[in-house]
Amino acid sequence: MIKPRTPPGVMELLPPDQIAFQRMLDTIRRNFERFGFLPVETPVMELTDVLLTKSGGETERQVYFVQSTGALAKNEEGTPELALRFDLTVPLARYVAEHEHELAFPFRRYQMQRVYRGERQQRGRFREFYQCDIDVIGKDALSVRFDAELPAVIHAVFSELDIGAFTIQLNNRKLMRGFFEAQGVADSELQALVLREVDKLDKRGADYVRETLAGEGFGLDAAAVERILEFVAVRSTSHADALARLDALGEGNQALRDGVAELREVLDLVRALGVPESAYALNFSIARGLDYYTGTVYETTLNDYPQIGSICSGGRYENLASHYTKSKLPGVGISIGLTRLFWQLREAGLVHSAESTVQVLVTQMQADHLPKCLSIASELRAAGINTEVVMEPAKLAKQFKYADRAGIRFVVVLGEDEMARGSVTVKDLRREDQFEVSRTELAQTLRVELAQAEVLSR
Amino acid sequence: MIKPRTPPGVMELLPPDQIAFQRMLDTIRRNFERFGFLPVETPVMELTDVLLTKSGGETERQVYFVQSTGALAKNEEGTPELALRFDLTVPLARYVAEHEHELAFPFRRYQMQRVYRGERQQRGRFREFYQCDIDVIGKDALSVRFDAELPAVIHAVFSELDIGAFTIQLNNRKLMRGFFEAQGVADSELQALVLREVDKLDKRGADYVRETLAGEGFGLDAAAVERILEFVAVRSTSHADALARLDALGEGNQALRDGVAELREVLDLVRALGVPESAYALNFSIARGLDYYTGTVYETTLNDYPQIGSICSGGRYENLASHYTKSKLPGVGISIGLTRLFWQLREAGLVHSAESTVQVLVTQMQADHLPKCLSIASELRAAGINTEVVMEPAKLAKQFKYADRAGIRFVVVLGEDEMARGSVTVKDLRREDQFEVSRTELAQTLRVELAQAEVLSR
Repeated sequence: MIKPRTPPGVMELLPPDQIAFQRMLDTIRRNFERFGFLPVETPVMELTDVLLTKSGGETERQVYFVQSTGALAKNEEGTPELALRFDLTVPLARYVAEHEHELAFPFRRYQMQRVYRGERQQRGRFREFYQCDIDVIGKDALSVRFDAELPAVIHAVFSELDIGAFTIQLNNRKLMRGFFEAQGVADSELQALVLREVDKLDKRGADYVRETLAGEGFGLDAAAVERILEFVAVRSTSHADALARLDALGEGNQALRDGVAELREVLDLVRALGVPESAYALNFSIARGLDYYTGTVYETTLNDYPQIGSICSGGRYENLASHYTKSKLPGVGISIGLTRLFWQLREAGLVHSAESTVQVLVTQMQADHLPKCLSIASELRAAGINTEVVMEPAKLAKQFKYADRAGIRFVVVLGEDEMARGSVTVKDLRREDQFEVSRTELAQTLRVELAQAEVLSR
Repeated sequence: MIKPRTPPGVMELLPPDQIAFQRMLDTIRRNFERFGFLPVETPVMELTDVLLTKSGGETERQVYFVQSTGALAKNEEGTPELALRFDLTVPLARYVAEHEHELAFPFRRYQMQRVYRGERQQRGRFREFYQCDIDVIGKDALSVRFDAELPAVIHAVFSELDIGAFTIQLNNRKLMRGFFEAQGVADSELQALVLREVDKLDKRGADYVRETLAGEGFGLDAAAVERILEFVAVRSTSHADALARLDALGEGNQALRDGVAELREVLDLVRALGVPESAYALNFSIARGLDYYTGTVYETTLNDYPQIGSICSGGRYENLASHYTKSKLPGVGISIGLTRLFWQLREAGLVHSAESTVQVLVTQMQADHLPKCLSIASELRAAGINTEVVMEPAKLAKQFKYADRAGIRFVVVLGEDEMARGSVTVKDLRREDQFEVSRTELAQTLRVELAQAEVLSR
């Protein structure tokens, strides 16, 4: 006998939670499609030489390699031929480069699949997790106007997910670069190091960061350090305030001016897209992957749960697929790490997993009623109602209890009296209510009840 | 520069086909839920000792093993700790055994995920493919009545997939066993060998099979051989004919009687579930995995494309998870291999991939109109319409051409004149028609158009 168990670092759910998770996936997908993004799925396995174009680094250390029984038996030296994807960006780059001549640009794709990373074993860290990504890829060029669409998608997704107030935080890498150059931090690697120190503000406090930046390693003068600390503390409080914050940066150098102009355009179009100004803000401390993003960057945080960190991040990049094609493919994208987010929301009590996908249970009072029960179920299903039938005889009380525990709201009872009258009894287990309805009107009545229940649950 | 390419044996689709594929997945899922099945997803990686409980065999030879960079570097002898699932049945067994005390039985689950097999490289053979499975698992016992639900699910799924007429073929392993025992083929392995020969009827012809069964290896007498050939040729042509075919088998032995009684009950309930009798038939040659199935077995074939083979198969099994738990868990299930099916349907020209998920393209006549275009798009999206906006200025003809090639049916044009009148022009690229509509009525008008288009396309 072998103990049934999953490998560490994966999230496996019981049906009630799986239903909640699936509803989140559906909501995300529906909104991605609403904004005109097209679905793409790629194989979980990629050729290793295609996947690992950059050698070394954190990524490669976390890769899972795949070998068939045959390949394993050969016991060859060296890196196996296949590996599991660790994100959806590298597969996107490969996909776009491979199908470049079959795709229409700007290419708007969404992809919602699992990715794999050999993470250190730790609570809340997953080795298999869903990413839900959208990207717009241009050929040769891609207007900054596209950068404005993504906050609108983020807003639509998280409004409908209904997990509380959130803020989409915007910044721009050009603006940051311009600002840091003006403070005498011209080297991009040094900028990254400064930002890493700045990131410690919350944990270590301003004094620590001040000392570090003025200390030997960085050697910035005190005035520059103050300006940096002031800069990274900027959070706008309204649309007008965001524009004022950009004005307050002054003329500056070319990079700063470019960044300001881009953010201005993004802010204006975000507003034109109807995103309420309470949902977005400038945050000059947002940097994201410095070696990758080159313009707009996004992070999204839950106002009441800042400790969860960013729930949706991304930005603008210069060239998606330089390892695979000579074509220049600039793009802008965002990603939601849904497995981790779901886990965190559940920990915070923000996921409700009570209701079943099953809407109606047709009970069975006597074994010889089954054909009638099945025929009722068929009518309900034909009317679009998710229906389960009790197939084996059992006490009615037990059947009700099953429905209640399974989160099935409506129960249909087919008693002798009702049968004689050509009707059935419907019990609403939520409202602890019941009513009799003629069979011909059953499906329509339940559709109305279910539609009402859905409206009320919003 | 690295050539962008996928590993052999995977199916990667361009968006139009991906949309068609996704619609099939959605249809299958919707119908699985309609019949009260609950979603389950399991990790793609399982612990090797859990996955490979049966050693040896075809399955193990096709397994993909997974190793993290760290595990690979250690270069340990022996089998790696992790492997990719090769079907959804073993993960289901592990899942049910692991969560036995948290699940309600009979447990009705559906699972639609990819599985991995190191298949020989061959056209139409996939190393990564979707399986769409449903199973009902009982604890200790599971009434044969459940066996009747699966043909109803199959009928609902394939009717809605709309890929042509199909026949759900039913048989019963007990009936077969009883029949073969009566012909002097008592040993189950020998039965399997006989059936393997019978399977060659189409390719090799009746004379070849007759000779083989009467020959040295089997040594069956000529009369038994004739009865076997007659038996496996049985295909019922209607519900009444199916019952008559069962009657015609006579009293027989206990196994035969049990099988006949089960098939009778299944047939009656399938009819009670409203499945038209043209959609199901007895086929006494259907055997499926002989070491696994113990009662009802199913195969489904497309009437006009028999060469595609079974598009949905399954059956009743005695005990799901004997390797993981002492509990007896009988079940009944079916599986659709969607990747292969999609590939075959596409080869047969039965997949239509013209239409986009994008329903409306909002064009842009002048760059400074963009905020207005975005605001129209937001209204359409709020009304549930999938809308893309042309973000970069381009000639209107080019924008129309883009919509046409992308399969977007409706195009919204916002000209100066229309703006002055508070209206927009809608072009229907399918009907090559256009009309002007006030902005306040745009969303509602397009909803009606789209609903009509959907009804007409059915």
